[in-house]
Amino acid sequence: MDSGIFSCTGVPRSSLVGFDASSESEASSQEMQIGVPLNEARDLQVRKLEIPDKSKRFVELLQQLTVCDAISDEDFQKRFQELSSLGDDHVICVIEDTNRGKIVATGSVFIEKKFIRNCSKVGHIEDAAVDCDSRGMQLGKKVLFFLTDHAQSVGCYTVIFDYSNENKAFYDKQKEIQMVKYFI
Amino acid sequence: MDSGIFSCTGVPRSSLVGFDASSESEASSQEMQIGVPLNEARDLQVRKLEIPDKSKRFVELLQQLTVCDAISDEDFQKRFQELSSLGDDHVICVIEDTNRGKIVATGSVFIEKKFIRNCSKVGHIEDAAVDCDSRGMQLGKKVLFFLTDHAQSVGCYTVIFDYSNENKAFYDKQKEIQMVKYFI
Repeated sequence: MDSGIFSCTGVPRSSLVGFDASSESEASSQEMQIGVPLNEARDLQVRKLEIPDKSKRFVELLQQLTVCDAISDEDFQKRFQELSSLGDDHVICVIEDTNRGKIVATGSVFIEKKFIRNCSKVGHIEDAAVDCDSRGMQLGKKVLFFLTDHAQSVGCYTVIFDYSNENKAFYDKQKEIQMVKYFI
Repeated sequence: MDSGIFSCTGVPRSSLVGFDASSESEASSQEMQIGVPLNEARDLQVRKLEIPDKSKRFVELLQQLTVCDAISDEDFQKRFQELSSLGDDHVICVIEDTNRGKIVATGSVFIEKKFIRNCSKVGHIEDAAVDCDSRGMQLGKKVLFFLTDHAQSVGCYTVIFDYSNENKAFYDKQKEIQMVKYFI
């Protein structure tokens, strides 16, 4: 495993929408950074999900990932509270384009407590997506860094990019369907 | 996906110790059932993990799966309580050979709550193992049935056998490293 950053090769699109390796490389060559424009000025904020993000097209971003019908405000808040009650054991990262008031990237990590490896913990990264109009800016890497940093900070010995594929056709083509990063 | 039962082909041994497809098939041909002897009479009980299972070689069984040093009674109870506090969201299944007072198979499932698919849930199966002296009795299938039944009962739309490999050499040989079963 390369140090410092995930390799995204072979990760199913349904789990990793917009985290295309080629576009990330292209962006890397241009030394893109958060807040630096691709084609226009963008102010980007990396943070945890908040309830108002529903009105900032967070659900519509998830719809680029997989099946995600419209969610009522009540259902959204209920699920948000359920996840919030887990504290550090379940964190959803978003990147907001603050100029447009739009969520342009997301990903989640949940912490599994185990008996193996001296009662260790493992971080599982799920449901990562970058908005179709915001790719090529390394936003995917920023989401993954946010989530892996969190997993490491709460004592995980490893973090796994889980495969939760809805796209059978794509799945069948994959040779590698998961990323694993060890902290120790 | 075959209905009713997982296909175990290609699952890494570190995540699925003793769930060997050939031994399962062999056992199937002999129409083995719980409580029916392989080479000797065995009374087998499928249930959730309990604290006294630590003294029934539960930890030693996990040591056949991956790195798992000795765990103090205090640490075991603390982790057990942490997991118990999650209720139906984290369940560890064990099979006890009650004649020998020994845990001979195990596996866990944790429930991830999502926003996608109408605020759905996904079950993640982890850390499944069958004791080396109890293979060929379809105990692996019984553990998986227990865990998938639980996942379905709490409303998961799918259950995933996660890849949490410690065995890099084995991992590199795998073409398929995860099983997915959809309930809908």
